[in-house]
Amino acid sequence: MPRIDLNADLGEGFGRWELGDDRTLLTMVTSANVACGFHAGDPTVLRGATAGAAEHGVAVGAQVGYRDLAGFGRRFIDVSPNELTDEIVYQLGALSAFTHLAGDRVRYLKPHGALYNAIVHHTGQARAVVEAVRSYDPELPVLGLPGSEFLRLAEDAGLRVFREAFADRAYTPEGTLVPRREEGALLHEPAEIADRCLRIAHGETVHAVDGTELRLDADSLCVHGDTPGAVKVARTVAARLSEEGVQLRAFTRTDQR
Amino acid sequence: MPRIDLNADLGEGFGRWELGDDRTLLTMVTSANVACGFHAGDPTVLRGATAGAAEHGVAVGAQVGYRDLAGFGRRFIDVSPNELTDEIVYQLGALSAFTHLAGDRVRYLKPHGALYNAIVHHTGQARAVVEAVRSYDPELPVLGLPGSEFLRLAEDAGLRVFREAFADRAYTPEGTLVPRREEGALLHEPAEIADRCLRIAHGETVHAVDGTELRLDADSLCVHGDTPGAVKVARTVAARLSEEGVQLRAFTRTDQR
Amino acid sequence: MPRIDLNADLGEGFGRWELGDDRTLLTMVTSANVACGFHAGDPTVLRGATAGAAEHGVAVGAQVGYRDLAGFGRRFIDVSPNELTDEIVYQLGALSAFTHLAGDRVRYLKPHGALYNAIVHHTGQARAVVEAVRSYDPELPVLGLPGSEFLRLAEDAGLRVFREAFADRAYTPEGTLVPRREEGALLHEPAEIADRCLRIAHGETVHAVDGTELRLDADSLCVHGDTPGAVKVARTVAARLSEEGVQLRAFTRTDQR
Amino acid sequence: MPRIDLNADLGEGFGRWELGDDRTLLTMVTSANVACGFHAGDPTVLRGATAGAAEHGVAVGAQVGYRDLAGFGRRFIDVSPNELTDEIVYQLGALSAFTHLAGDRVRYLKPHGALYNAIVHHTGQARAVVEAVRSYDPELPVLGLPGSEFLRLAEDAGLRVFREAFADRAYTPEGTLVPRREEGALLHEPAEIADRCLRIAHGETVHAVDGTELRLDADSLCVHGDTPGAVKVARTVAARLSEEGVQLRAFTRTDQR
Repeated sequence: MPRIDLNADLGEGFGRWELGDDRTLLTMVTSANVACGFHAGDPTVLRGATAGAAEHGVAVGAQVGYRDLAGFGRRFIDVSPNELTDEIVYQLGALSAFTHLAGDRVRYLKPHGALYNAIVHHTGQARAVVEAVRSYDPELPVLGLPGSEFLRLAEDAGLRVFREAFADRAYTPEGTLVPRREEGALLHEPAEIADRCLRIAHGETVHAVDGTELRLDADSLCVHGDTPGAVKVARTVAARLSEEGVQLRAFTRTDQR
Repeated sequence: MPRIDLNADLGEGFGRWELGDDRTLLTMVTSANVACGFHAGDPTVLRGATAGAAEHGVAVGAQVGYRDLAGFGRRFIDVSPNELTDEIVYQLGALSAFTHLAGDRVRYLKPHGALYNAIVHHTGQARAVVEAVRSYDPELPVLGLPGSEFLRLAEDAGLRVFREAFADRAYTPEGTLVPRREEGALLHEPAEIADRCLRIAHGETVHAVDGTELRLDADSLCVHGDTPGAVKVARTVAARLSEEGVQLRAFTRTDQR
Repeated sequence: MPRIDLNADLGEGFGRWELGDDRTLLTMVTSANVACGFHAGDPTVLRGATAGAAEHGVAVGAQVGYRDLAGFGRRFIDVSPNELTDEIVYQLGALSAFTHLAGDRVRYLKPHGALYNAIVHHTGQARAVVEAVRSYDPELPVLGLPGSEFLRLAEDAGLRVFREAFADRAYTPEGTLVPRREEGALLHEPAEIADRCLRIAHGETVHAVDGTELRLDADSLCVHGDTPGAVKVARTVAARLSEEGVQLRAFTRTDQR
Repeated sequence: MPRIDLNADLGEGFGRWELGDDRTLLTMVTSANVACGFHAGDPTVLRGATAGAAEHGVAVGAQVGYRDLAGFGRRFIDVSPNELTDEIVYQLGALSAFTHLAGDRVRYLKPHGALYNAIVHHTGQARAVVEAVRSYDPELPVLGLPGSEFLRLAEDAGLRVFREAFADRAYTPEGTLVPRREEGALLHEPAEIADRCLRIAHGETVHAVDGTELRLDADSLCVHGDTPGAVKVARTVAARLSEEGVQLRAFTRTDQR
């Protein structure tokens, strides 16, 4: 029976400001990337997200980001590797306190936003993230973009590495994401997205933006949940995969069958 | 052989801004109250302070405070108890990540500034701090003001409770601190302060501001280190206690003799 | 022809987080209390809100608050009066830059959230707000709660003082607001709220929570817009007042007929 | 009689944290780059710095920076040009409120730290800063690095442009600064620095790091004041220039002789 993980960002509110429909997403996904307070997520939000995840049996990942509430972590910051390592350790510790309260622990790390994008190529910052994980908990898996400098260095450091594909993003023939600002970068049709997810889960090829056949080896599919439309897509993907006999299961549990 | 703990605030810089002479203090104190990022202390500061403490065999306490960098945690904030509990859990987790990296763990909690003062009387916030400790780690000792609502509730909750006296503060006949804004609230003469610390360590009485004899049962003496003058006082106190045969030892080690 | 002002909070988003429907509110209200960045409102939000207000001929007020993004300015902070004065001057200046860009200027000041509530009674902070206005621009009107310490001190200082009533809040027989946590504190029925607003605009009495007849002398009616329900109420109030021949006009223009 | 301006950074404390010796610097410099709250400088610091500058007849410039207290504005942030323009307008307005209280106004703008360095080459952000000045006050002079994209675009936009040289930095033969991390980047010898400043003030050549003769056309000399050593250098420079008959005068007053 084929299986795959569905991950989504949770806990991205802050104080008075809500974002995304965590409650609904928790009924669909198997892994939740919970913000840790630097780009989003205040302590009460973290408690709610981790408690909700525990209740639904969803694996919690640390969605670490730049210290940038005003920019939601979506702006590259040229922070020095040493400081970045410390900032990530800080976020890991903070989130761990809440998974501990929920009777669980942080199951993986996934960088957020501009940090995620930066460490596809930025060796210094990629190494900083790897160093944070290695020093904090060398058993902690990381989730990232296949082919990224981040995953390459993580593997070199002996970390457990998992790869994700994006359900609603178009790919170049080289297997990288079509930048958001380009036409056709985002897929919107739920049925089409679900179909593609199904192919990925079965290890079949999908079409790149120019029609090229492309194989996306992925342990996890990233879906979004910060708009009503995104929630609908996530719901469609989850339902379709289940109907077609794909088991939805946290990637962090692959070796615990 | 009588013994006592000396505690001081450390890790209170932030980014470009330095405060206090952590390096020197670590050679004198036995317990370090390390800021956790809410009123002071960025992640790199936390790493430095916890690594330094481990190196010197100094016990690290979580110096938790209100989320208030601009006010250095010295302004009462009427945060709801639930949110306060979460904010303290967050800070405990963040600091714990760094003590973990240093091969140690957080040994106690001591509230900072306005929070410290608020929970002498404010039942809701005092209970919130106790609840944070209880839910995060019921074995974690707390350090506070004798007679405070905080220590009373902590004891009721079964927490391990330790009491501190302030080396450089004048006391009222009732055993409370003379408010800073009143004349004579602060002692400045190193020899006089050291003498008083010695009496406290020996369980002898000291003089309140009006001359009344007062017994301050204390497990720990709080010294300051954020000015050159304060460092000099701390040095004098530490030297005097040692010379007079008082063992300086972290209060968290009292039961490990 | 009777007339009254309708005011609402605008510009309360921050970065990725949106709050309220500014675009719609601007078609209804005559005065916009624009957040200044301390409890909400980043610079781009301020530009958008002030530009929108200018476009719709809506008067812009500085909605100044405590420095507290995490608490949305809804938690009392015991900031010293001197610092509070400076924080308000800072916010006034920041917002003024954007009204200047929009070809207008800040027309009044209205404190936000916990600060609004605090200075009903807190003399030190009320005086601090008055001092900020007096030193920055003694011609700048202030909007507040009738009977508050704030308006009393503002009047004593020679400031131009305007009073507001809350469209959707229940009143005690003494003319103060029923606290939010008490039953019946909030009115929800649009027609009932609109009816009460109409009575206030005509200078007629309304019913306090216990049925007492109460006269609320008000230059402005405060409506909310941060939920879809609130927008509906605001729309109903604005429509009803217009239909019944009440002129909606910014209170800051009363002397410019 | 030759003349030149001496500028230094002021108002760079934040809350409990002090930085630099503003009081002493104000007795030496003719222009003060006052931080505006984004990388340093809380409202009370801004009030103190602007009041002190007014008292000493020192011209106040807006030292605008990235929103980055933790990094002191020294880390490049890839903020979008539109948002950057808004952030600079916000800072200009905030500081203006305090120069207004001091009976003066903001006399010029000088970008801080990583922003200063970025807009030497980064066209989008350079244009964003120019646009902020142009839209807020097209008469406001800007101070920057000769040859920078920033000054080139500012000139194109019709802004009044002034150039600065760095008293204590080594120059490449091309007239750019030797990066801080390279050996010999910083000059330390007060007499040598003062001598070089004197040559610049007289329009004479100075030696680049490789000995090349270099002419630095500068309207202002930047001195530092954030360490005791820096203050001593500034003092020596100011004294030497005065002794040698160079008039110290704010560059913003060049056309008001």
